[in-house]
Amino acid sequence: PILILIFCKCSAPFLGKLLVIPMDGSHWVGMKAIAQEMGRRGHQVTVVIPEISVRMGPGKHYQTVTFPVPYDKAYIDTVISANKGMMSKEALPFMEKMRKGIAKFQKIRRLLLGTAESLLFNDTLISHLQQQGFDAVLTDPMVPTGSLMARLPTINLLRGIPCSLDIKSAGCPSPPSFVPRFFTGYTDKMSFKQRIINTIVALFEPLMCRLLYWHFDQITSEFLGEDTTVAEILSDSDIWLLRLDFASEFPRPLMPNMVLVGGINCNVRNPLPDDLQPWVSGQHGFVVMTFGTMVADMPEETRKIFFDAFKQIPQKVIWRYNGSVPEKVPENVKLMKWVPQNDLLAHPGARAFLTHAGSHGLFEGLCHAVPMLMMPLTAEQPDNAQKMANKGAGVVLNIQTITTEILLDGLKEVINNPKYKENLQKLSAIHNDRPIDPLELSVYWTEYVMKHKGVKHLKATVNELNWIQYYSLDVTAFLLIVLTIAKWCFKNSSK
Amino acid sequence: PILILIFCKCSAPFLGKLLVIPMDGSHWVGMKAIAQEMGRRGHQVTVVIPEISVRMGPGKHYQTVTFPVPYDKAYIDTVISANKGMMSKEALPFMEKMRKGIAKFQKIRRLLLGTAESLLFNDTLISHLQQQGFDAVLTDPMVPTGSLMARLPTINLLRGIPCSLDIKSAGCPSPPSFVPRFFTGYTDKMSFKQRIINTIVALFEPLMCRLLYWHFDQITSEFLGEDTTVAEILSDSDIWLLRLDFASEFPRPLMPNMVLVGGINCNVRNPLPDDLQPWVSGQHGFVVMTFGTMVADMPEETRKIFFDAFKQIPQKVIWRYNGSVPEKVPENVKLMKWVPQNDLLAHPGARAFLTHAGSHGLFEGLCHAVPMLMMPLTAEQPDNAQKMANKGAGVVLNIQTITTEILLDGLKEVINNPKYKENLQKLSAIHNDRPIDPLELSVYWTEYVMKHKGVKHLKATVNELNWIQYYSLDVTAFLLIVLTIAKWCFKNSSK
Repeated sequence: PILILIFCKCSAPFLGKLLVIPMDGSHWVGMKAIAQEMGRRGHQVTVVIPEISVRMGPGKHYQTVTFPVPYDKAYIDTVISANKGMMSKEALPFMEKMRKGIAKFQKIRRLLLGTAESLLFNDTLISHLQQQGFDAVLTDPMVPTGSLMARLPTINLLRGIPCSLDIKSAGCPSPPSFVPRFFTGYTDKMSFKQRIINTIVALFEPLMCRLLYWHFDQITSEFLGEDTTVAEILSDSDIWLLRLDFASEFPRPLMPNMVLVGGINCNVRNPLPDDLQPWVSGQHGFVVMTFGTMVADMPEETRKIFFDAFKQIPQKVIWRYNGSVPEKVPENVKLMKWVPQNDLLAHPGARAFLTHAGSHGLFEGLCHAVPMLMMPLTAEQPDNAQKMANKGAGVVLNIQTITTEILLDGLKEVINNPKYKENLQKLSAIHNDRPIDPLELSVYWTEYVMKHKGVKHLKATVNELNWIQYYSLDVTAFLLIVLTIAKWCFKNSSK
Repeated sequence: PILILIFCKCSAPFLGKLLVIPMDGSHWVGMKAIAQEMGRRGHQVTVVIPEISVRMGPGKHYQTVTFPVPYDKAYIDTVISANKGMMSKEALPFMEKMRKGIAKFQKIRRLLLGTAESLLFNDTLISHLQQQGFDAVLTDPMVPTGSLMARLPTINLLRGIPCSLDIKSAGCPSPPSFVPRFFTGYTDKMSFKQRIINTIVALFEPLMCRLLYWHFDQITSEFLGEDTTVAEILSDSDIWLLRLDFASEFPRPLMPNMVLVGGINCNVRNPLPDDLQPWVSGQHGFVVMTFGTMVADMPEETRKIFFDAFKQIPQKVIWRYNGSVPEKVPENVKLMKWVPQNDLLAHPGARAFLTHAGSHGLFEGLCHAVPMLMMPLTAEQPDNAQKMANKGAGVVLNIQTITTEILLDGLKEVINNPKYKENLQKLSAIHNDRPIDPLELSVYWTEYVMKHKGVKHLKATVNELNWIQYYSLDVTAFLLIVLTIAKWCFKNSSK
């Protein structure tokens, strides 16, 4: 008897229509990769983007539909240049720092809300899109425009929502006893004190969600004309593609419709442009430095520290930098408005990666095993950086207190101490060893949702339970009452 | 720029040594499939089986090591023939029924424990195996011999342990508010009353585990010379390959090291033997009837009912039957000591599947979309049957109250009413549409565990927490005390 192994692809090739409502900045990277690959496979992919954006734009395999927004490129530039302040060494008084922080937050919030409202209340565009007969929508629920707008089978691509709205909407348990919360910096092994703090943070998550999504809850009701919330809309989602991987995360429960696709863009490669060849082929290798889409510039004082340190290393330095440069650039430093970050890190000459510890960058560093010098700025970056440092993948520096000496020591440490490379090779082996490539997997589930019109059999029905029911608090109360009565009866009868 | 998609297989082909400690009966099917495929890929696979067993035996791609057991083939036959009683129409008094049930349970228990002890306390064999330098052990933790014996990186293949020992050992949350317990027959949508009963069943699970594994806990301590339990040993397991699929199960949380491989043997096919050709090629198609490995025979009275019903249908019937047949077998019925069940169900002529609703059979019926007439006998079979019937995949009959008319009606219903086939085609499409074939996936994770020497990064660290800590009961108590004190202080200060 011959053993025949057939990989059952029973259904005929399916081609459909996919609507994509992306988010700007680094969030665009994975989304674009999926949109491109879906289009390449023959699906009709429509990406809806604002007329003005940081980095979203057309692609070879999808069509774009744009909509007008109430801000201009200059406004986006002011939002981005406000981020420069995060690197400032200026010791601002606390109140001033708070004021600046809140002002920055408000600016970003206004940008996100402005974009969302411009799309949702653009009746012509909405009805045009409604007539297209899309099979599904692929979106980033961090800003839930796509989820609200389409009411179609939904694929979410995201890193995670800080108040755990994603986890709650998917009905996924997340016990505070071993699942560390955002911003705590804890691991999965917590002391009693840490578990108390972690639980308190978990208890405050619903409040945090309220604060973060308060305005969106209003838009939701207004747009849909029914009394509902973002959380309710999100719990209808079909597939959650999470840009996470347990090579850098702690093990935690997942629901059947949560799919891990961390490192989604790792294998999306292009050949390096010719002008970069001399910069990557030197005998000492090279260092890549990027601070992400949302940071283009750097205060003069900080930039000088970097230049002074770079002058003293034998490696070439390729630096993504958009600001002005008054003084002379060191000979071994190449400033570029945009760098092919993943292709550079994949090059065998890459010796170190100077990064703000955004999730995409870290996955690229992890995938290609490049030791990291991490200078987190904002959001989940300090958390990300701490996790990678805990795994022995690099060193964390504070950019606000950095000096040339500290930077130089950090550079020499990650470049010359072999332990970082060795740790990364192990981590990388784990991270890269997956039954299926994360982009392939993302496309697979996107097609699945389109083909089967959702994933009813994979979705928990927990959105029909309120939190008292979900945590069985009503059942517990009932059982306690019964026990108490039984005890009382027993006591009285034995008197 | 050209988009290059590379599926990163960074490490060189890895070949290692795998130890397999299987369980007998239907549990052997999936295990054998993995052992064969691992061997075919070039790994050195050693399967350890008792000298006497129901269906375990040698294979082309693995070597077998046998060990003596204190029972003979005749004893196994008496255990199997005791199952015949489950089909009896005899209305036994309750006490007699209980007595028979307990006697049967004791027989099976004695068989399993006898086998386990014969292996664990066979010092020569154990030390021989220890010297082989295996990279990992593949085993079925329902009988935890393999887990105890090897203390190697462990891959578990199982359907599920009724007292949820598997779920608990993996540290997987299983909220009773939406995860129905074994034997309750509930769905994921429960009424308040059902949630109360489900919670009570969940609360009794630890006690049930104690009862089921009490003797094994003793063996564990004796064999390992340390005070430990089966639960603790199992929580060290690396990968849980679960023979489940959400096409027939309700969505529930999973841990990162739980992998669903339901339908693992669906694509393991062999050509049908020549003598079966005339039986499968008739214009009316054919019916397949099997009652699993553990049921070989049938009381005469029951068999007659089947013969009488089969005489009245135009389909051919292929029946796996080991018992004696005094009367004349109908012309359209072929009795066989063994049938290639999966290959028959995969044949386009298969019209119906008469089954005891064992999990393997149901997956084969599901995979090939064959309407089912289910007559569950024992264990999780009534649960399995109810789930499939709920999905519209067939009809459940009670074999103890069956008559020729009832059976004939059931047969006609599943064969002639197109709704079963239609429902199954939908279910089958969902079940078969997976990014990777379940056998392929099982082999992938087995190799992964061998290559990386375990999956530390995927295992929850919850075995370091006791249940009070796991459910944060200590933290809750602390917070309640703090709140009470704070309230008291506030009250007193405002007086």
